[in-house]
Amino acid sequence: METIPLADALRRVPASPVTAPHPLPGFARSTVDGYAVRAADTYGVSEGLPGYLTVTGAVLMGTEPDTTVAPGTAVAMPTGGALPVGADAVVMIEYTAEAMPGTIEVVRPVAPGEGVVRADEDAAIGQEIIPDGRVLRPQDLGMLAAAGVTSVRVHARPVVTIFSTGDEVVPPDTETLRPGQVRDATAAALAALVTDAGGAPVYGGIIPDDQGALDKVLREALGTSDMLVISAGSSVGVRDETASAVAKLGEPGIWCHGLAIKPGKPTLLAECASVPGEPGVPVIGLPGNPRSALVVFRLIGMPLVRLVGGCTVPPPEASTRARLARDLASATGRLDVVQVTVRAGVATPLFGVSALLSVLTAADGYVVIPEEATGLDAGTEVDVTLYR
Amino acid sequence: METIPLADALRRVPASPVTAPHPLPGFARSTVDGYAVRAADTYGVSEGLPGYLTVTGAVLMGTEPDTTVAPGTAVAMPTGGALPVGADAVVMIEYTAEAMPGTIEVVRPVAPGEGVVRADEDAAIGQEIIPDGRVLRPQDLGMLAAAGVTSVRVHARPVVTIFSTGDEVVPPDTETLRPGQVRDATAAALAALVTDAGGAPVYGGIIPDDQGALDKVLREALGTSDMLVISAGSSVGVRDETASAVAKLGEPGIWCHGLAIKPGKPTLLAECASVPGEPGVPVIGLPGNPRSALVVFRLIGMPLVRLVGGCTVPPPEASTRARLARDLASATGRLDVVQVTVRAGVATPLFGVSALLSVLTAADGYVVIPEEATGLDAGTEVDVTLYR
Repeated sequence: METIPLADALRRVPASPVTAPHPLPGFARSTVDGYAVRAADTYGVSEGLPGYLTVTGAVLMGTEPDTTVAPGTAVAMPTGGALPVGADAVVMIEYTAEAMPGTIEVVRPVAPGEGVVRADEDAAIGQEIIPDGRVLRPQDLGMLAAAGVTSVRVHARPVVTIFSTGDEVVPPDTETLRPGQVRDATAAALAALVTDAGGAPVYGGIIPDDQGALDKVLREALGTSDMLVISAGSSVGVRDETASAVAKLGEPGIWCHGLAIKPGKPTLLAECASVPGEPGVPVIGLPGNPRSALVVFRLIGMPLVRLVGGCTVPPPEASTRARLARDLASATGRLDVVQVTVRAGVATPLFGVSALLSVLTAADGYVVIPEEATGLDAGTEVDVTLYR
Repeated sequence: METIPLADALRRVPASPVTAPHPLPGFARSTVDGYAVRAADTYGVSEGLPGYLTVTGAVLMGTEPDTTVAPGTAVAMPTGGALPVGADAVVMIEYTAEAMPGTIEVVRPVAPGEGVVRADEDAAIGQEIIPDGRVLRPQDLGMLAAAGVTSVRVHARPVVTIFSTGDEVVPPDTETLRPGQVRDATAAALAALVTDAGGAPVYGGIIPDDQGALDKVLREALGTSDMLVISAGSSVGVRDETASAVAKLGEPGIWCHGLAIKPGKPTLLAECASVPGEPGVPVIGLPGNPRSALVVFRLIGMPLVRLVGGCTVPPPEASTRARLARDLASATGRLDVVQVTVRAGVATPLFGVSALLSVLTAADGYVVIPEEATGLDAGTEVDVTLYR
């Protein structure tokens, strides 16, 4: 938890519901330009039989009215002005005319409360104005400002430490690669996904395929992180090393190793506590292929980051309905994620081995083929989750 | 334009397309664990009639292969390893077995290119890997990292100066209001919407209802801003003062004053150049009611901020289909924006005068009733744009 100024609070998650410290707007307020009146004085008036009222003053914006409204009188009102004592409605200026200096005629009746916002109509004192667990949206910041709430107690951003493993992986700023080397694409993209989910990404670095080295850095990071993410090297041996390091990291340990999802099968999910008996932090071992790693992290990692960050009402995702341009095969019992482009309501699947990042950069979004389906026929209407 | 590090580039807009400085992945790469072979050596093999190959070495991750593949031989490969010279395919380990030390049997044939990613399959040298005009998404940062592009030339964030006007408006941190005063809710919410659209909001402050004061601050801000936004005081007199100040601000001047939209009718759109003959900056005068101002800014201001910021491909908005819980009235020739909650596929309109912010904070999204419609019946399926 931390208390932050309103100006920094966009998309942060309030730690508890925020209530109105004062009623809002705080005074009965005109919603139109016109005249504050006693509604009863206008009953029965019409174009043919106007009512006549004596104008006893005018309300100025931002000031307390210095006149009251007695029977048979009216006070000129700007939109947003404070209603004078005695008045219970505001007649729109369009339904009045100056009959003679100091007197108006009114050609339409108003009901009590018409043309007026009550003093507590936007919020009563103590009323919840912003819920907890939902990110603060632009209009929520407006409401807080209106209520005079200029700092907010929010959940701290979960610290998510991201490790890359693999002897072939080198930093992105490596100018020239030796054959066999690849630059670390996954860490930069994972950090962005963590940020999108409200987390604070920390680069843990590139760890060589060495059991001792991995054990050590994971143990150190466990004490300072709210989540660990390890994008595994892609060979069989390295995958085993990640699992073995995570297994030793802390209780309760590995939940599952291997998911019925394509791409993303080698995913490892664990919960490890640095102090036995304490609640653990989530640990995710991702496949070595950047594309598989990003698909899995979007489906499983981002919701976890949100939950750890107190966000129980996830923000809506952009999606669209589209018709499949071609058949999509899938195995029963496995969830398939297929990247697509969307043009004019047609979703065209992008194929390519899971090592290719260009499929993700070319895609507008993805289609999920559920476990129970054996595939989808061309022309099927599908929901495409859109990348933003 | 500015050049920024990759780690800061999420959601920024590239000023020009980014091309691959090197082919990617840069070397022919195995996509499976198995053996690098000459595909021709596997033709015709089967479970009943395996082929036999002599294993002459093993490729290590991240290193250049130190062996070549001659006819009748194979080299052990990890996923992601560099393909040795001479090999044109990789047989998955599942389709091999050790026949005797140093020799494997192969029970399935492979075609040339199988189990392999070509050296330029993710990107050829000089190929466009990231387009301009679209915000950088997490996977785009991954692709740039993979290509060794660690800084990006992007459009500068448009500087959007936000003014509030009205003698009744006081800063949000005002502890106690006098009757008639309201805290500035609009500026905080507008700043958040500007941020969401990729702009850099600047608070211009609260300007009293005084023609000279408004003229002066607008003129000063025009020289330092890429867009001006003025949320008008809500009374007729103040609205006139905003229009009059904008009219004097610069050529070409006011495009329109008054939009066929509800809420938001008093909106003013202008383009003003501080130096005659130079391109002007957009100037938006918003209605005084915070809710109206935010509705209009979302529909008109945010797309303008994006365009000024070079974003020609706006990110997708979250939306959902839902059935209206009740009739919605609308006048022909006017666009209506109605806030709704959405539960279980039912969109329930939220009513309340435009002064109420609580309608916006309670809403999940909004429905737009187009100009040509005279209203929508209960049960109509509508598109709800979701707030996020």
